[in-house]
Amino acid sequence: MRHSFPLFQSHLDLAHHYWQQNVQIGDRVIDATCGNGHDTLKLCQLTLSIDKGKVYAIDIQSQAIESTRIFLGTHLSLDLMKRVELQQYCHSSFPDAILPGSIKLIVYNLGYLPGGNKAHTTQLETTLKSLNQAQKLLTQGGIISVTCYPGHPEGAKEQEALVAYASHLSPREWSCCQHVWLNRSQAPSLLLIQKSMGMK
Amino acid sequence: MRHSFPLFQSHLDLAHHYWQQNVQIGDRVIDATCGNGHDTLKLCQLTLSIDKGKVYAIDIQSQAIESTRIFLGTHLSLDLMKRVELQQYCHSSFPDAILPGSIKLIVYNLGYLPGGNKAHTTQLETTLKSLNQAQKLLTQGGIISVTCYPGHPEGAKEQEALVAYASHLSPREWSCCQHVWLNRSQAPSLLLIQKSMGMK
Repeated sequence: MRHSFPLFQSHLDLAHHYWQQNVQIGDRVIDATCGNGHDTLKLCQLTLSIDKGKVYAIDIQSQAIESTRIFLGTHLSLDLMKRVELQQYCHSSFPDAILPGSIKLIVYNLGYLPGGNKAHTTQLETTLKSLNQAQKLLTQGGIISVTCYPGHPEGAKEQEALVAYASHLSPREWSCCQHVWLNRSQAPSLLLIQKSMGMK
Repeated sequence: MRHSFPLFQSHLDLAHHYWQQNVQIGDRVIDATCGNGHDTLKLCQLTLSIDKGKVYAIDIQSQAIESTRIFLGTHLSLDLMKRVELQQYCHSSFPDAILPGSIKLIVYNLGYLPGGNKAHTTQLETTLKSLNQAQKLLTQGGIISVTCYPGHPEGAKEQEALVAYASHLSPREWSCCQHVWLNRSQAPSLLLIQKSMGMK
């Protein structure tokens, strides 16, 4: 018989669950590392209708932007596609068009592009720079969701630094929590950083 | 303006959220450390109806059993109270009437009885013994939920040992995860241990 765990099958289930709890149709969200576009599609499904919602999908690699464009195109209507903005950017910066205090959810999936060049992992310095920018873009109650991959050395270093970073944010202004699997040595972890409802 | 975090206000919100996801009316559950009965009441609300469901509420202290009895009595009908069994036991053992493979959720809230004697904290050895018993009582897909209090020295030691314990359970048979707050130094953590759907 198949062994399975109904509470959460994977870190993706868990991340999607938190996103779903925090966003609704009409919200503006960012996929800061869109990769092959699977998370982007989930964000589109949670936030877009014909006349409202906005998804920004960003990646440093042109291959990722193209994969995401094709993947979304096979799943979304042309009307919904008009509400998605795909941009080739390093995730250390965000397009100027995105206003501070306007974004409900910013998603990072760290590590390398699935199926792509494993040398192109996210780099700690740019990730931390990006998080500083991302904090300003969030609405009150908005969330940064970061999936970390401690299973490879660069990912383990990155996770450690991000946990240290989040641990030092003001508890009055930010609620930071981490979800880890204990008995799966290579499993990703999920870091959530939420802006207080009372913070401008 | 009040600072608040809508995703989860506290570790209790989070624990209750997971319980709610995993149990339904008619399930049999155990509060292994019923304390003042607040968690017990939540479990009753999630599982009991007039003709089905069962909640076992256990505590080593008679004071806790009495507090729970009074607290539940002010919130539940006599019909529902008939489906609650209050027992003064050390949590290292469970009543013989509870059959292996019959329990959907077993809840531990470690540390001392709120308002009681702080010297009466749970002890690591009995907690580990209890977890071994609890594993056998769970249904397939059943969950052990443990709230740890690393803010006091005994609690920190206990959490460390429980994390080590869960980390070594077979990933084919058990899914173990932990949820920690990063920027609240005294915050409790939540440990979840789920039995595989395919495990007898």
